[in-house]
Amino acid sequence: MSFEKSDLLYEGKAKKIYQVKDRDDLVWVEYKDSLTAFNAQKKSSFENKGEINQEVTSILFNALEKAQVRHHLVSRVGEKDLVCLKVSIIPLEVVVRNTLAGSTAKKLGIEEGRKLDQPLVEFYFKDDSLGDPFVSDDQALMIKAVGSQKELDEMKSLALKINQRLKEIFHKVGIDLIDFKIELGRTPGGELLLADEITPDTCRLWDLKTGEKLDKDRFRRDLGKIKESYEEVLMRLKKWEKESQ
Amino acid sequence: MSFEKSDLLYEGKAKKIYQVKDRDDLVWVEYKDSLTAFNAQKKSSFENKGEINQEVTSILFNALEKAQVRHHLVSRVGEKDLVCLKVSIIPLEVVVRNTLAGSTAKKLGIEEGRKLDQPLVEFYFKDDSLGDPFVSDDQALMIKAVGSQKELDEMKSLALKINQRLKEIFHKVGIDLIDFKIELGRTPGGELLLADEITPDTCRLWDLKTGEKLDKDRFRRDLGKIKESYEEVLMRLKKWEKESQ
Repeated sequence: MSFEKSDLLYEGKAKKIYQVKDRDDLVWVEYKDSLTAFNAQKKSSFENKGEINQEVTSILFNALEKAQVRHHLVSRVGEKDLVCLKVSIIPLEVVVRNTLAGSTAKKLGIEEGRKLDQPLVEFYFKDDSLGDPFVSDDQALMIKAVGSQKELDEMKSLALKINQRLKEIFHKVGIDLIDFKIELGRTPGGELLLADEITPDTCRLWDLKTGEKLDKDRFRRDLGKIKESYEEVLMRLKKWEKESQ
Repeated sequence: MSFEKSDLLYEGKAKKIYQVKDRDDLVWVEYKDSLTAFNAQKKSSFENKGEINQEVTSILFNALEKAQVRHHLVSRVGEKDLVCLKVSIIPLEVVVRNTLAGSTAKKLGIEEGRKLDQPLVEFYFKDDSLGDPFVSDDQALMIKAVGSQKELDEMKSLALKINQRLKEIFHKVGIDLIDFKIELGRTPGGELLLADEITPDTCRLWDLKTGEKLDKDRFRRDLGKIKESYEEVLMRLKKWEKESQ
């Protein structure tokens, strides 16, 4: 099947979304080379970032599909480009944590790196102007981000299933999956799908042996070797994908 | 029964807690005249505040008892003094909101004064050094503030029952109960009890007719007439208590 890029629908911090010509059910997603943190207050970019993130997302989404996780990815259509199902994005970022790091560790006064007895699922209300505030289930319902507790439970259950498979995959390539953020969407028919991306921008990935960070924290915290780390993650995943076929 | 004040066990921002002589199961709670806000970064006091808050708490706890809410209050033993059951305080502040105001309204970008379809219950982890951070049920379990979701559900259910009765009482004295914070404790036998206080320090109380604030927001926001507002709340509740007997 061949697709043609049409009108720009939306430009985000890391991707541009276009209409697919003559296909109202599809969007064309172009990964950008830009790198942002702290709600875009810190900005940078590096060459090939769009390509790397597109490839990492594709490998992981395809692997998740084999674990019966439904997602929005339809086809790779270019170096930085994917065609995806057009979904209605649920305005809650879903974060899954296996080890404490980042905002939740800081908020609760717990040192980074504490392993959790069981994965923790968190919701953040998607609103850049408010800084994506953390919300409880009851607050998410109050602001009508979703319609029911059942829907939140379905989202948690899907997030935990994705976490289980991602942890296994990353473990096989020598990476400890500390946490990650996903976005979920619904098709016009109401089916819940994994959408957006899974990349070093949206995960914390620590090398299993050295503990070295291989994710966006290298940029947030000025640790250097940003591009090299993103490339390292892609290289390991590509090798794993090849070997597991 | 007569009680005697013994060693100081703990001094908080608004109360001092003493042992009761020869009664390991009881504490002597002395309400202070001090007034603090923003995690004690803003401080003041006024004469008779301790007495007012002790009286407001006593009236409300006694009224709640008639609605089958178990609480820690045993006896009034002085102008600013209560004898209470010694309980193990659960390290979660429980906030119930009927109308949005304060931190949650700000966080979610919603104007103050929006009435909620149903009361919202929130938990805040009691830790002054962290600024009492807001936590979800799953975060509360992760930090082991309580042992189980069942326990959180029991706390929510008790908080909603208290809210129902408090709303009715305040409505009868011409006050709209916007929100309030309570602390819950467990007896050595494991029974869940309402503890701490319910006062203009811990509630948002808006006059039903004028919308005028009659609570600690007058101090937080430098609105003046602080003492007068606390006295007004007590006077109305005393009148109601007398008439309803």
